[in-house]
Amino acid sequence: MKVNKLRITTKSKKYSIFIGRNLINNINNILRSEKLSFKKILLVIDKNVPSKFKKKLLKNIKTQSKKTFIFNPSEKNKSQKSIDEIHNILFKNRFNRDDCIIAYGGGITGDVVGYSASIYKRGMKFINIPTTLLAQVDSSIGGKTGINNNYGKNLIGSFYQPDLVVSDIDILKSLSSREIICGYAEILKSSLIDNYKNFKFLNDNLESIINIKQPYIGKAILNSCNLKKKIVQKDEVEKDIRKVLNLGHTFAHAYESCLGYSKKLNHGEAVILGIKNAIEFSYKQKFLNKRIYDLLKNHLENIPLNKKLTTLFKTKDVNKIITYMKADKKNNSKKINLILMKDFGKIKTDSQYNEAIIKKFLNLELKK
Amino acid sequence: MKVNKLRITTKSKKYSIFIGRNLINNINNILRSEKLSFKKILLVIDKNVPSKFKKKLLKNIKTQSKKTFIFNPSEKNKSQKSIDEIHNILFKNRFNRDDCIIAYGGGITGDVVGYSASIYKRGMKFINIPTTLLAQVDSSIGGKTGINNNYGKNLIGSFYQPDLVVSDIDILKSLSSREIICGYAEILKSSLIDNYKNFKFLNDNLESIINIKQPYIGKAILNSCNLKKKIVQKDEVEKDIRKVLNLGHTFAHAYESCLGYSKKLNHGEAVILGIKNAIEFSYKQKFLNKRIYDLLKNHLENIPLNKKLTTLFKTKDVNKIITYMKADKKNNSKKINLILMKDFGKIKTDSQYNEAIIKKFLNLELKK
Repeated sequence: MKVNKLRITTKSKKYSIFIGRNLINNINNILRSEKLSFKKILLVIDKNVPSKFKKKLLKNIKTQSKKTFIFNPSEKNKSQKSIDEIHNILFKNRFNRDDCIIAYGGGITGDVVGYSASIYKRGMKFINIPTTLLAQVDSSIGGKTGINNNYGKNLIGSFYQPDLVVSDIDILKSLSSREIICGYAEILKSSLIDNYKNFKFLNDNLESIINIKQPYIGKAILNSCNLKKKIVQKDEVEKDIRKVLNLGHTFAHAYESCLGYSKKLNHGEAVILGIKNAIEFSYKQKFLNKRIYDLLKNHLENIPLNKKLTTLFKTKDVNKIITYMKADKKNNSKKINLILMKDFGKIKTDSQYNEAIIKKFLNLELKK
Repeated sequence: MKVNKLRITTKSKKYSIFIGRNLINNINNILRSEKLSFKKILLVIDKNVPSKFKKKLLKNIKTQSKKTFIFNPSEKNKSQKSIDEIHNILFKNRFNRDDCIIAYGGGITGDVVGYSASIYKRGMKFINIPTTLLAQVDSSIGGKTGINNNYGKNLIGSFYQPDLVVSDIDILKSLSSREIICGYAEILKSSLIDNYKNFKFLNDNLESIINIKQPYIGKAILNSCNLKKKIVQKDEVEKDIRKVLNLGHTFAHAYESCLGYSKKLNHGEAVILGIKNAIEFSYKQKFLNKRIYDLLKNHLENIPLNKKLTTLFKTKDVNKIITYMKADKKNNSKKINLILMKDFGKIKTDSQYNEAIIKKFLNLELKK
């Protein structure tokens, strides 16, 4: 069994990420090797985790007291109400700071459980076992936690690092191809931020990766996590460097908001569309040369994505999209901040544009 | 104008604490000297801040956009509802992470505002201007924020350091003697944790300090903040070292809980009673010698405190007190953790006792 272990060192915590096959069956060995032991564990299990994997974890987690809570992940349930429900279980069972809560599921589950942990008695132990490709390569690393409210997505939350992340590759085989594409979006983004070599690996092995073939998928996950590790270690609370991770995300978030975070367009799909926009915009602003632009455009077209900007939106939606872009957490002026690309490994984070320029750009994109 | 400036360096933030006279009038100079500037500020003003001081701050804070929210501080209002109210103002006025929220008031105001800041878009700028002696020497330093819920006090919260603390001594003259005693409790506690020299200064100048006479009160505040600074810098998230700050607090919190956090007994009064217990218990366990015990007992008797354990509780309340002691966040087993004293500067944090021993002790204390 080939297991990769990444060690993350942030100002607030040091912890490990395990990536490999057959990890759920070995969870007790992993905990022991990390010197993690808990009297009480609350397992928050995503409703979408296949029953076989649910049983595997329940069987293999050994502890004095074990509670479970089945969580139905949706943007609606990414709410204060869910936090209260989880806290009620913790308080009723007298959990303390040294006890542990485990998130076993996708990104929403991880975000909700991580946030619950961060504010319970000012912070309790937290383990993340991401079960989707997107969560394995993205949300489980970096300590961003949060919930939505009436004003928008992820507007309440904290930076809170887990004590351990376990990414079992076996579980990915149960995902739909749409969910895999969703995770692939972040893998691709990471490679662009990182270097040409990692992009080339994706470009050469796209089909094997999205078919969850080893060793390709494992290497793709590892590369992506490694990039996130480098960035998070340098900038834990998104002051500056970490902004590169938002490549394409200003567009992506606006699209998702505009569609009310419905199932019409999931996050990864929005990110691919956002990256396409960011590449196009970067090329038009002459930040990106023709050769790289063509290479990227070709790769993006090879991703089996069933979503197109032109079918999702009409030109009359542009004003609405712009309104959402202006509400982005990254903006600190009236202008819109875009994260753009100059070259592999060279991301430009400080570009501010008037809405008129972006409106013109989007109008053209929607007429393509 | 003699102003003391303490520089706090924790893992997550570096910031300054200003202690001195006439600081509110000079708030703009202080902000400039700290290189802090904000487009938007929300001023959360404690209802108990005298109108004169309210006006002073409002006049002297210069910024593009300034909102105010008058907060009625009470244990009941130390709630998620208050957090939602504050967040509503921030969202409606499109505050972002680089904008600032200022707490201008006592400890409850600081805790609520600090917690609001910590989870708003995963953390916004936060300035604390404590207006009670207790808040100046205690809650404004160390980054503990939080609210109460149905299960108890401060059970939801975060560790979140402010960007600046401004402690203006002038405002203390408006406090009742009861509020001053409340702050003095923490000043005394700090001296016991620190060293004999600081305790001697308090013992020699008790009357001047509780009458807010300069330079005594200024020095007492500074010493207390300095001690907290040393500890918080070593241990930001209360893992071990920071536990010394809970000297007497296991008893104190249980008394407050038992009385439903009513006005019968405020936090500082409870802390003095708790320190008395901790000293007595430490002496009975032979951790403390007779000479120090007598010195401390004498000092504690000289504090003009109108509260006695024997009038607040009856022996039949002991079981209830014990139940609350067992619920303390510091416990991580069935035993009760007490923070005890061996000498000035020597605090014992690892003592665990069965409830029977503590029950016997409390029964004796209540029969005195």
